[in-house]
This record gives sequence, structure tokens and C-alpha cells, in this order.
Amino acid sequence: MDISDWRKKIDELDRKMVDMLSQRAKAAHEIGKLKRAAGMPIYEPDREQSVFANVRSVNSGPLPDSDLLRIYERIMDIMRQIQQEEMATGAAPSGDTEIDSEVND
Amino acid sequence: MDISDWRKKIDELDRKMVDMLSQRAKAAHEIGKLKRAAGMPIYEPDREQSVFANVRSVNSGPLPDSDLLRIYERIMDIMRQIQQEEMATGAAPSGDTEIDSEVND
Repeated sequence: MDISDWRKKIDELDRKMVDMLSQRAKAAHEIGKLKRAAGMPIYEPDREQSVFANVRSVNSGPLPDSDLLRIYERIMDIMRQIQQEEMATGAAPSGDTEIDSEVND
Repeated sequence: MDISDWRKKIDELDRKMVDMLSQRAKAAHEIGKLKRAAGMPIYEPDREQSVFANVRSVNSGPLPDSDLLRIYERIMDIMRQIQQEEMATGAAPSGDTEIDSEVND
């Protein structure tokens, strides 16, 4: 495979990852709604540790765990922000898509 | 669905994303080898812009593009680092897995 073949593969992976990150954001939004209803805190250190543990447990390389966790720190940051917006406003997250009708599939 | 159901869904998504990030890292490593052989630079701003354009083009929310790009900046950072290591040493990236035999599938 030459560079352009590898780049095609990367572009395909990226399209799938965007879909997964979108699904993850929808789930975070739904959890935000449930937390709001139950008066639960957004930041739950035990749950964050369990996300990191899950990620580490399936990592078979070549990325070292530390790099994977750096990526996940950024993802968790964004997801926490979604829940903060959910808690603050009770409205949809800052994208302009209404997701409630799509999420229960 | 309650919070624990949504979290199960998130954990599943994360396991798939780890697999994709691993595949992406293997591809970056292979590209690093090809660049080294061809004496090409690691940092190619046009290619990075094309990665961001690809990601934006398939984003249908709820994450705003700006959040998705923040996640991708982190991913690209890590991937550039893998290629830098490849260029510097000609060795496998800093994980302890030998990947050459797995990558041509």
C-alpha cells in the first residue's frame, strides 16, 4: 500500500469515528437529562475512572495507554461540557440538531 | 433507557473507538515509514486540512464542528508524534506491540 492508500483507509476510519463520537454525544446528552431529573452531579470521578479502565482494558497497541488516555481526556472534556449545558438550560446541546427524536432507536 | 443502559452503550462505543484509533495509529506508522523512505516531511498542513474537512463533511451533530475538531486536534497531535518517532528511529512506535505483521490485512 502506498501513502494514498493508507490515507484512504484513515479517511474511512475517521468517518466511522465521527459517527461513534456523535452517538456518544447523544448518549451523554441523554444521561445529562436523566441526571438533571434526578438532581445528580455532572462530574462523577468514579465513572470517569471506569471509562478510562474500559479503554485501557481493550487497548492492544500500538498506541501506548498514555496516548489513548490523552485522547480520551479531550473526549471526556467535551462530553462533560454537553452535560453541563444540559444541566444549565435543559435544552439541546450546542449543536443545532434536535436529537431527542433520533435517540431512542 | 436508564443511566446504566446509556453507560453500557457508551462503553461499547468506546471499545470500538479504541480499535479504530489503533488501526489509525498503525496506518500513521506505515505512512511514517513511507515518508522516511521518500524523505518527505512529517507535517503536511494540506493533509491535515483535508482530514479536518473529511471529518466536518460527515458530521451531522449533535457535536458542533468546533468540538469535533478539538478532539481531532488531539488525535492528530498523537499521530504526528508517532510519525516523528518513526522518522527519528526507524523503529516501531512507543507501544510494545510489533505491528508490521498485523498491518497488511
